[in-house]
Amino acid sequence: MKSIRSRFLCLAVLLCGALSVFAATSATVEKWGVFELELKGPEDGNPFVDVRLSAVFTNGATTLEVPGFYDGDGVYRVRFMPSAVGEWRYETKSNRWPLTGKLGSFTATAPSKGNRGPVRVFNTFHFAYADGTPFKQIGTTIYNWLDTPEEVQERTLQTLAAAPFNKARMLITQQPNPYQGKFAPPRWPFAGRPPHAWDFTRFNPDFFRHYELRLAQLRDLGIEADLILFNPYGKWGFETMDAANEERYVRYVVARFAAFRNVWWSLANEFDFLRTKTMADWDRLGALVQACDPYNHLRSIHNGSLLYDHNKPWVTHVSMQNGAAVEESGRAELYRDVWRKPVVYDEVKYEGKSEYRWGNLSGEEMVDRFWCGTVAGTYVGHGDYFFTVSEDTFTSFGGKLTGVSAPRLAFLRKILEDGPPQGLDPIDKWQDPNTAGVPGIYYLTYFGREKPTAWTFQLYKNGVVDGQRYKVEVIDTWAMTITPVDGEFVTRKLDNYHFDANGRSVALPGKAGMAIRVTRLGADGKPVKVELPTD
Amino acid sequence: MKSIRSRFLCLAVLLCGALSVFAATSATVEKWGVFELELKGPEDGNPFVDVRLSAVFTNGATTLEVPGFYDGDGVYRVRFMPSAVGEWRYETKSNRWPLTGKLGSFTATAPSKGNRGPVRVFNTFHFAYADGTPFKQIGTTIYNWLDTPEEVQERTLQTLAAAPFNKARMLITQQPNPYQGKFAPPRWPFAGRPPHAWDFTRFNPDFFRHYELRLAQLRDLGIEADLILFNPYGKWGFETMDAANEERYVRYVVARFAAFRNVWWSLANEFDFLRTKTMADWDRLGALVQACDPYNHLRSIHNGSLLYDHNKPWVTHVSMQNGAAVEESGRAELYRDVWRKPVVYDEVKYEGKSEYRWGNLSGEEMVDRFWCGTVAGTYVGHGDYFFTVSEDTFTSFGGKLTGVSAPRLAFLRKILEDGPPQGLDPIDKWQDPNTAGVPGIYYLTYFGREKPTAWTFQLYKNGVVDGQRYKVEVIDTWAMTITPVDGEFVTRKLDNYHFDANGRSVALPGKAGMAIRVTRLGADGKPVKVELPTD
Repeated sequence: MKSIRSRFLCLAVLLCGALSVFAATSATVEKWGVFELELKGPEDGNPFVDVRLSAVFTNGATTLEVPGFYDGDGVYRVRFMPSAVGEWRYETKSNRWPLTGKLGSFTATAPSKGNRGPVRVFNTFHFAYADGTPFKQIGTTIYNWLDTPEEVQERTLQTLAAAPFNKARMLITQQPNPYQGKFAPPRWPFAGRPPHAWDFTRFNPDFFRHYELRLAQLRDLGIEADLILFNPYGKWGFETMDAANEERYVRYVVARFAAFRNVWWSLANEFDFLRTKTMADWDRLGALVQACDPYNHLRSIHNGSLLYDHNKPWVTHVSMQNGAAVEESGRAELYRDVWRKPVVYDEVKYEGKSEYRWGNLSGEEMVDRFWCGTVAGTYVGHGDYFFTVSEDTFTSFGGKLTGVSAPRLAFLRKILEDGPPQGLDPIDKWQDPNTAGVPGIYYLTYFGREKPTAWTFQLYKNGVVDGQRYKVEVIDTWAMTITPVDGEFVTRKLDNYHFDANGRSVALPGKAGMAIRVTRLGADGKPVKVELPTD
Repeated sequence: MKSIRSRFLCLAVLLCGALSVFAATSATVEKWGVFELELKGPEDGNPFVDVRLSAVFTNGATTLEVPGFYDGDGVYRVRFMPSAVGEWRYETKSNRWPLTGKLGSFTATAPSKGNRGPVRVFNTFHFAYADGTPFKQIGTTIYNWLDTPEEVQERTLQTLAAAPFNKARMLITQQPNPYQGKFAPPRWPFAGRPPHAWDFTRFNPDFFRHYELRLAQLRDLGIEADLILFNPYGKWGFETMDAANEERYVRYVVARFAAFRNVWWSLANEFDFLRTKTMADWDRLGALVQACDPYNHLRSIHNGSLLYDHNKPWVTHVSMQNGAAVEESGRAELYRDVWRKPVVYDEVKYEGKSEYRWGNLSGEEMVDRFWCGTVAGTYVGHGDYFFTVSEDTFTSFGGKLTGVSAPRLAFLRKILEDGPPQGLDPIDKWQDPNTAGVPGIYYLTYFGREKPTAWTFQLYKNGVVDGQRYKVEVIDTWAMTITPVDGEFVTRKLDNYHFDANGRSVALPGKAGMAIRVTRLGADGKPVKVELPTD
């Protein structure tokens, strides 16, 4: 076997292209970067269907088989994201001689600044980057920003660079486009033409190369790309794919994109509105994504009106549409217990001035929903649905933000990132839905649409003992102010709670959107450090 | 085969006992009544373990194999609930000659008044008796009322006879008993003695006969018995059963009780507090109940703090503990979508004056929770937790009700039974959690703790067309009054809603606990009849 492989070894080419997509330009690549192997192979027949290619990568401790893909013009690629520094060796496998048995190696170097690896589920209900840094999800939605004129795409990137969002949801296949007539979608994922004249057995590499350029730009902005594999919006005929075509599509997308550390898989948007698929189809496709992604990126499925069974093992977290559920923290909390996975309310209606009931939140309402979700121990997504003549809406096609919630979401993100690394969990579920935190360490209480004029210092008994010292701050979630309350609060127990030993209350301004942050102080008068759970 | 069977046919005895439990006293029994076959068999060894007995019943169209059981003193019984009138024939099967191959027949007659058969899931989220009569669940909780002195049990029956409850949750195995010392539990389910000196391979027929007497009395009061097979409360050692003993216990209970039409199976109370069982144990035991109950009675499992995966096929409906979820209708509604099964909030804290946070609801709060659950398209359970010296609490051991919610729950039950037979579903979920009904036919809006002074006539567009006529009534859920509003309301559409053509509003008294009932009128000025969905 060895001798046969060796004959073709000289053909193995390590190439990282002219695109800024790939960090490696030599036989080194940073940890969680993209190593890319380029091979020349057959162009005859239909290489997308006829040729199978993968490579086994190993550093001795970890061994992964990684799918390759055909990139057109006789070029094949295998992309690999190394999860550890040091030497990695690989060997290709294929059903074609020019592509099989290629051996090689490269060195993974330390990650550069801002590269924290892929995001994983952490501490049951939360997220963290692979390097352990907590990921406090503040999402937004830009469904088809890649189907707009280039200048709109560039403007979208500029908007995102200045915005607080660290995750964006986006479609892969197109929805109807307001630029049509003046501007048709520039690239389609398949060979053929719309509507319905597709050859689902042949992909359009140009579409995917463009998509990858944008994925890399999002990555470099610190934005996770929540990629929606299927959607119900097209009138283009993508909904007619049969099971074999669906599988080929999923495998191709995963083979191309999975080495990007900032990829999340969203199996579908409003899956139940896609009437050409059954629940069994979603089960099968979700399990397929799980099976063919060597990196185990986050996976979810997003509902319209019917909920998916998120207990299925392939689902890593809940991606929920339900605006009503985050109108009030007591609602938002309920879904956590059902699935015991992170809950992301990715669609809670959009900030906007739309005729639709799902696109007319005020900025205050949008921010309120983020805070309700936060103190319920869940995460929320943003949308901006102001219809502009030239750009449709930000949430549909990118461009500029019109709404006023974004700075307040930046303020919230800062509070979360200053908070306990393990995430905020309900302190006393079913009794006090307004408070999340870490017992005896940190408490965040949000009063929602209530307009209290005072808050009695009061902590639920778990994790608290008498004589602990706490700092209290008053937060105005809209004005973006954090006002410390003079002095310290010292705990004294009464029944199920600890009050301040001197019976102190905190004055509040009697307006909506207020919060309280309570932080325990150590003997040195500084906030107590939180111990991280091991997950 | 026939000749062998015939030899023993003369031994087949049809006996219905002196107890009032069984409707049949001859070879006839009413549909959904209990036919009982008594056989004499071996007393040697351990008949509970050694002897297998069942009977196959058929009326030609339906054939069921029904498990039998050993009732002590050499007596074996097979109980059967016929689901159709007419002649039923049976043949016994056993691993002992005296019990096998018995042939016989009986006639099932029309059900008597009040006998509507077992309750089934109906219209996805609701319940109905087997005869099609809707079952509007108004539950209560009397955990160990069968472990009290006889006079307390009799008083419990008197209380129930005058109360609105049509379902009661109760334990099978005992919890610690306040009558101990003066009064030990009169009967234990197993041979042996507490604590821990049990012979789990031998049941105590006297315990079960007494239980059956009470089941039949509940049945005759029109009360469904939600029987809790396992609980975490005992200090008696029942929690130490191994898998073989658990299975024998489940099979014995089901063989004895399943022919009672008013039986529901609750696999456990606060299952997650029973630390000696794993989630896999509950999956196995739930599937076992399903497998060995020939009548497919309703099955659920009731949580403490962790939720069970109610998507498991053996679960027919959700039995939820969560008081917070029915504080507000928008919360109560969320769990419906998760499982698409009926949701019964069986434990929402109790009306009481307890030191515990779960046992100190006011009567107003108890009633409010029932109404919140109702307009969320779900069902609620009651508890009465006033500690009385001689009786503990009603919810623990029966006796008398102390709380004041019961008459208001009777008022609610009447409203539900006067309402659409298919049950109330949210009219505009995620937009208006306060309103349930049937689009274009019937609307029930509950304002909860809000204190509105007016309600603008407004119906969501689904099922409504312009020019329909509606009657409006104002309901005071606490004072138990229904006040018609003068005149009719005629619909006119504006955007997503229909308002009254004359812009009419309804005055409300500015107090909590108010509701509105809106009923469509036909050309004859009478309420429009609701068409029942076929399930």
